[in-house]
Amino acid sequence: MAKADVFLPTGMRDLLPAQMRARHWVIDTVRGVFARYGFDPLETPALERIETLMGKYGDEGDKLIFKVLKRGEGGKAGEVDSALRYDLTVPLARVVAMNPGLALPFKRYQIEPVWRADRPQKGRFRQFHQCDVDIVGSESPLCEAECLAVVHDALKALGFTDFTIRLNDRRILRAMAAAIGAEDREGAMLTAIDKLDKIGRDGVTAELRERGFSEAQAEGLFAMLEGRAPVPGGEAAEAGLGEIRQMAEALGVAPGHIALDRTLARGLDYYTGPVYETVVTKPAIGSISGGGRYDRLVGMFSGKDIPAVGVSLGLERILTVMEELGMLPDVSAAVDVYVTVWDDATRPAALAAAAAFRAAGLRTELHLGGGKPGKQLQAAERRGARFAAIVGPEEAAAGAVQLKTLASRAQQTLPLAMAVIRAKSERTEP
Amino acid sequence: MAKADVFLPTGMRDLLPAQMRARHWVIDTVRGVFARYGFDPLETPALERIETLMGKYGDEGDKLIFKVLKRGEGGKAGEVDSALRYDLTVPLARVVAMNPGLALPFKRYQIEPVWRADRPQKGRFRQFHQCDVDIVGSESPLCEAECLAVVHDALKALGFTDFTIRLNDRRILRAMAAAIGAEDREGAMLTAIDKLDKIGRDGVTAELRERGFSEAQAEGLFAMLEGRAPVPGGEAAEAGLGEIRQMAEALGVAPGHIALDRTLARGLDYYTGPVYETVVTKPAIGSISGGGRYDRLVGMFSGKDIPAVGVSLGLERILTVMEELGMLPDVSAAVDVYVTVWDDATRPAALAAAAAFRAAGLRTELHLGGGKPGKQLQAAERRGARFAAIVGPEEAAAGAVQLKTLASRAQQTLPLAMAVIRAKSERTEP
Repeated sequence: MAKADVFLPTGMRDLLPAQMRARHWVIDTVRGVFARYGFDPLETPALERIETLMGKYGDEGDKLIFKVLKRGEGGKAGEVDSALRYDLTVPLARVVAMNPGLALPFKRYQIEPVWRADRPQKGRFRQFHQCDVDIVGSESPLCEAECLAVVHDALKALGFTDFTIRLNDRRILRAMAAAIGAEDREGAMLTAIDKLDKIGRDGVTAELRERGFSEAQAEGLFAMLEGRAPVPGGEAAEAGLGEIRQMAEALGVAPGHIALDRTLARGLDYYTGPVYETVVTKPAIGSISGGGRYDRLVGMFSGKDIPAVGVSLGLERILTVMEELGMLPDVSAAVDVYVTVWDDATRPAALAAAAAFRAAGLRTELHLGGGKPGKQLQAAERRGARFAAIVGPEEAAAGAVQLKTLASRAQQTLPLAMAVIRAKSERTEP
Repeated sequence: MAKADVFLPTGMRDLLPAQMRARHWVIDTVRGVFARYGFDPLETPALERIETLMGKYGDEGDKLIFKVLKRGEGGKAGEVDSALRYDLTVPLARVVAMNPGLALPFKRYQIEPVWRADRPQKGRFRQFHQCDVDIVGSESPLCEAECLAVVHDALKALGFTDFTIRLNDRRILRAMAAAIGAEDREGAMLTAIDKLDKIGRDGVTAELRERGFSEAQAEGLFAMLEGRAPVPGGEAAEAGLGEIRQMAEALGVAPGHIALDRTLARGLDYYTGPVYETVVTKPAIGSISGGGRYDRLVGMFSGKDIPAVGVSLGLERILTVMEELGMLPDVSAAVDVYVTVWDDATRPAALAAAAAFRAAGLRTELHLGGGKPGKQLQAAERRGARFAAIVGPEEAAAGAVQLKTLASRAQQTLPLAMAVIRAKSERTEP
């Protein structure tokens, strides 16, 4: 196979060590916050039955589902029976339906990749990670408040300061559809409103006209969306949002971070009540988190509705923003001690030194492949090691190590045990 | 959809919170050891091009690869262009071929799922996690020694004591094939030998006969396999294994843990030199780790051979063994503090208390959905919480919290800040 033939499927990418260290830092931080809120970990398989996924995400979503051939055998039509999960919410609903003995409310987090055959764009991939928390089995608006608070805390823990959680309720949007006499076209209305951020008021108006809404209907809708007119029948839902906001603030969300916003629609089909998303406001980079209540999704599997609510953080989006804003911590230091190998005779002593550094928890790399001491020290510097450990014939005979601080070039010959203590006292955190 | 229709694709399963906590503990432990050895994290996409995977795992392996339809569109024959990865080694070789600027030696670890459409059996699934370390770009036998040492340290860190690392070299097996005049049937010979643990000497002999080996050839082969005869032409490789063993021992592997074993074949096609696997000896549960040198796999992608060596730990196998042996630590405690909600008037104070416990890093769950105090305390006990925090009208007015230790039923009313300190001082580790 010639080199030109080696590439990845469309929309896929590798994550090399520098990127991975940043990802691990973000994932560990987010996971820590999720656990602090009492969410438990869950993992579901990448593959779901095709019937489990279809019809949950709207027509557009269904088209983006990656289908997998039965038993891995290829070529014949109609042998598709499974597919790669499109999100983590539908699999959760399936888990709840399949485990009727699960203690409710069930609070779980899940941080895993999902797959969507979207048209690839800059910064948009066909495999990406979602970080989800969900609460299944409670109708209390406290659930929504917890979702807002956990997102707020996760973003604060990552170092975000300028962001707004936009909050709306699908029932308010449904009331708007009723108010303009378009109950039967609520889906089309939502799809159009969902594009407001991208195509603006004129674009949405044009799309509404295309979808058969009259000028007067579009006008009436915008009067409600922009708060110039009340939403008849939306009062209870609006009061509910006020309550959620109060509870979220009691949970520690600073008031400035929450904004009620009648124009927020969220794309997915399955939401039934409050919906929310978080946008970074400085710089204005857009949504990095979204979620809402979906009280009928479990029922689509079990035949019995169970209330549920959740929120999802988009890992890739968060990393892109953090990188652009220079928010990522210095996670470049991969190696504490780089152990050189002088010659064959001293090699056992060098290996024993490496073992001792490692036993103390120090990230220790052993020079592979020979070369003169100077060349080995250069390799240590290229790896960004803090210390080099040199075990020459005299050191080997004495059970000692020459410990060299690579930044300052200072060096000291110490008994091995002392060298370990010295290196450990200056350890960098991963 | 009726309940009976809700199930998972063949060989797939969910991992519920109790299982996940054990998995996280094992993965975090293994990842810590990998990092201590100077391995860097890498992530590759689940999907690879079909051409990347085919022809690397032998005919049997090729059949087990899950194929994915192009762009997620289904139904038409011949539209397969990608597949789910079968292991983490072939993707690594592709990464190295695609990134010629990568600094060598490249040491990476990767802990991720792989997919194989194997016939499902008890304890064998079609999605499972591999924990791999590999060193690309060095021919030094120190690489093999590092692989043995990192496996040894990972198993020790997990609490394993009785295990043996079996060590052989594909070149010794090739020399055996030559010695019995079967150079052209080396693959068939390896496949038969690989089954020795399962079907015994008689089974292997029968299989060799079936594959056209004579009685004398089988006899000669077993004389060498069992060490009753030397392996002509295998001397250099045997000396190499001795050196690897010495270096691994200098790196801290206890001598009793390594056994040279001429009968070890390892199934995969791509190995070119030393191969090894780790078996748990008490109880005799079989292989939980395997690996070897594969100096020609990168060249299959780039046209230019780059030496490489690695080892893989099987997460599911390790967890099964640890569960059977009762080795898993107690990771059941999911909640430190369970905050009850007395009534609507005191709710803001209860939420503020939850926020304060969380800000201190305590895993804090808030009671959702009302109910009398006694019922809420029962919920706290069901969740295995250490403390319940009760904020009644008096406590709310005084900025205080009633902190109840659920095991002893002892309780104390404390100012909120003091209650946080008290709960934190008795925090259980996750």
